[in-house]
Amino acid sequence: MLSVAEIVTLAQRLQQELQANPGSHPFDEILYCNIGNPQSLCQQPITFFREVLALCDHPAILDKSETQGLFSADAIERAWQILDQIPGRATGAYSHSQGIKGLRDTIAAGIESRDGFPADPNDIFLTDGASPAVHMMMQLLIRSEKDGILCPIPQYPLYSASIALHGGTLPTGWGLEISELKKQLEAANSKGITVRALVVINPGNPTGQVLAEDNQQEIVEFCKKEGLVLLADEVYQENVYVPDKKFHSFKKISRAMGYDEKDISLVSFQSVSKGYYGECGKRGGYMELTGFSPDVREQVYKVASVNLCSNISGQILASLVMNPPKVGDESYESFSAEKDGILSSLARRARTLEDAFNSLEGVTCNKAEGAMYLFPCLHLHQKAIKAAEAAKIAPDAFYARRLLDATGIVVVPGSGFGQVAGTWHFRCTILPQEDKIPAVVSRLTEFHKGFMDEFRD
Amino acid sequence: MLSVAEIVTLAQRLQQELQANPGSHPFDEILYCNIGNPQSLCQQPITFFREVLALCDHPAILDKSETQGLFSADAIERAWQILDQIPGRATGAYSHSQGIKGLRDTIAAGIESRDGFPADPNDIFLTDGASPAVHMMMQLLIRSEKDGILCPIPQYPLYSASIALHGGTLPTGWGLEISELKKQLEAANSKGITVRALVVINPGNPTGQVLAEDNQQEIVEFCKKEGLVLLADEVYQENVYVPDKKFHSFKKISRAMGYDEKDISLVSFQSVSKGYYGECGKRGGYMELTGFSPDVREQVYKVASVNLCSNISGQILASLVMNPPKVGDESYESFSAEKDGILSSLARRARTLEDAFNSLEGVTCNKAEGAMYLFPCLHLHQKAIKAAEAAKIAPDAFYARRLLDATGIVVVPGSGFGQVAGTWHFRCTILPQEDKIPAVVSRLTEFHKGFMDEFRD
Repeated sequence: MLSVAEIVTLAQRLQQELQANPGSHPFDEILYCNIGNPQSLCQQPITFFREVLALCDHPAILDKSETQGLFSADAIERAWQILDQIPGRATGAYSHSQGIKGLRDTIAAGIESRDGFPADPNDIFLTDGASPAVHMMMQLLIRSEKDGILCPIPQYPLYSASIALHGGTLPTGWGLEISELKKQLEAANSKGITVRALVVINPGNPTGQVLAEDNQQEIVEFCKKEGLVLLADEVYQENVYVPDKKFHSFKKISRAMGYDEKDISLVSFQSVSKGYYGECGKRGGYMELTGFSPDVREQVYKVASVNLCSNISGQILASLVMNPPKVGDESYESFSAEKDGILSSLARRARTLEDAFNSLEGVTCNKAEGAMYLFPCLHLHQKAIKAAEAAKIAPDAFYARRLLDATGIVVVPGSGFGQVAGTWHFRCTILPQEDKIPAVVSRLTEFHKGFMDEFRD
Repeated sequence: MLSVAEIVTLAQRLQQELQANPGSHPFDEILYCNIGNPQSLCQQPITFFREVLALCDHPAILDKSETQGLFSADAIERAWQILDQIPGRATGAYSHSQGIKGLRDTIAAGIESRDGFPADPNDIFLTDGASPAVHMMMQLLIRSEKDGILCPIPQYPLYSASIALHGGTLPTGWGLEISELKKQLEAANSKGITVRALVVINPGNPTGQVLAEDNQQEIVEFCKKEGLVLLADEVYQENVYVPDKKFHSFKKISRAMGYDEKDISLVSFQSVSKGYYGECGKRGGYMELTGFSPDVREQVYKVASVNLCSNISGQILASLVMNPPKVGDESYESFSAEKDGILSSLARRARTLEDAFNSLEGVTCNKAEGAMYLFPCLHLHQKAIKAAEAAKIAPDAFYARRLLDATGIVVVPGSGFGQVAGTWHFRCTILPQEDKIPAVVSRLTEFHKGFMDEFRD
């Protein structure tokens, strides 16, 4: 199997070769469509967020006159508010291991206003991005290899990696049909596996689907009935590109169904790395835990304490994404313009790539509803599959490597995410700069035609 | 046993009571001497470091004219340099999982100039503080409960917690005498434990000792001979307060002995949380790995990749502490004044507290050579020990709780660090603001007299 790391290593080698010998390859730059890392592809950070972070990093300038000329008034005001929430205004001190209480208050208020149901700041655990939060939960849920976490595939490999790291078992099945989930659960049980939780990524990674409300309700019902913890990866909550779909948190769905803390154990993961903000390098995020016993909460707190606290800039940023500028704030218009600019451009890019994939021979691509990815399915000729076998790699990895060699476009083979046996996919982000999308489409189209012709049975 | 967490919870309750009812306790504030968190006790951050962080957070202001009036010229220059080291100047993008290459170059150069021996940027792994780095190494070193990590006590409980978390065994012994280490190693071996590494904290936590060069050489020799990985916690490398002691990294010591990569496997942990900078909330640090096979390095890289990367501000700060302003830089004088001010004040505080402890009946306190702690030994009367037994807590925890109730001073009972059976200690930081030290001393002295009188046999 050709791993993601190997594809990236190959891409980096090609990039070095291009730098050393321009013209050494049939393309002049590497286009990284393999990872949801928007700012590495020139997406600009949201000005208001960065203003507040800079002011909190160097509060000494807050009351200097030059600062008024450099920073917006509401960023200055917000920085003061945040500093006042930090004991001693010490942005360089370890915080409470769950995160600064005042910032958790802000986040809880943001969740309430998003969902229309109450949120408790004591349920919030601020973390260095969503990944450490996922690891914490896996560490707590998995007691031995007899414990399993149900992960519908295709799925972001963080989950399989984390489950493996903590010595658990990973029953998988395609999609989020309840009948399918039941089948997987029963199969796991019959092997002596205690399934402890279900992972749902919504909007989806790698598929970009946004779950329908009734599917979400069925999932809640299923978890409640089977006593599973629902691990809701909701980091793409701001990334919805189609008018007929909306993001609903699983907490909102379950509360609207009349279920409360005693009915269902629910973890919602959020991150500053995705959305319109894309602040991957800041390592901020949180998880909201509801429906757990004080005992379990105590355990989560203990695990959180081991690393002392998450980084304060990430904590501040998590509070900002859950409480951005409001109508009437000085920054509101420019903030909205930046936000809408990014999201509408992402929507256009998603649509263009989706159409392009669907116009290719033997390719069917899911609708680009949300998140940052497309996951086209490749119907390859037998000759291509045999050629991959001969090269000792999966057919989709074979395709991805050929694509990279011919075009400089880096995608992730579907085998990394899990896929129905005998089907082949790749994951392609929608993140290249908008003015590069036509080149992506034309290079990809040309490559694909050649590939299909070369391996026509 | 009364845990650290319980002492802190108790302190927080007292603080709330004081806020609600001033005068409800025989003191007017809680003095936190329990944790090495300098900025929570009003230590100010180093201006140059914060200037650079703020500019990297909001590079849009770098070429505005007002910025010249607000920031020092060398901070602006440094921010540009750092941005140029980051691909696409994207401080909001995931970096290489080991950390940004240019920053690792800077850190390696800093290590070289500190030690006088070469350092390789590819040996540096940037992390969110030292704790995650320690966890990574424990995860890799401990394969089962048959693997042990030798931890001379007393010792910072991060190590015991991390070893427990990863299912390993913790052979302990007092101090760093080689004869004692050998005894512990043999005892572990005879129980079927494979000891894989030795942890040494230098300068020491909780004891504040700075190892003598010949003791370091013996330790290197011992690890080399026994094939142990030397895990060198060197986060207090800037915290040395006595003129006759100097910090020497274990890498420098081993290279000076003529040992290189093939002779000894060595990990050095460094953090932005300690030193004169005390930037705990920024979660920055690194580990330098030397003398490991490419295989092991690959494994470390894999574990590092699981959380994508450490936070970029922490990475930047780690590069700054290893490459602070130099003679001739605009900030050099003010930087040096801030640094020397903090370090000389810490030295005075350490000395005052050491003298105060040593003047108490039945207390002997180690010399305050380095780090941020004193670890006085309590020689308690039998009556006190019996009273503690009756209260079902360790005598040192009994003392610490009484001290807190009577004075508002929070210290950590020695039982949390491991101590020779039948001896009792507490760890007290030297971090309270200098103008509060006289109050700490007088409150503590008065309390101690009363305690000794109350429990005199």
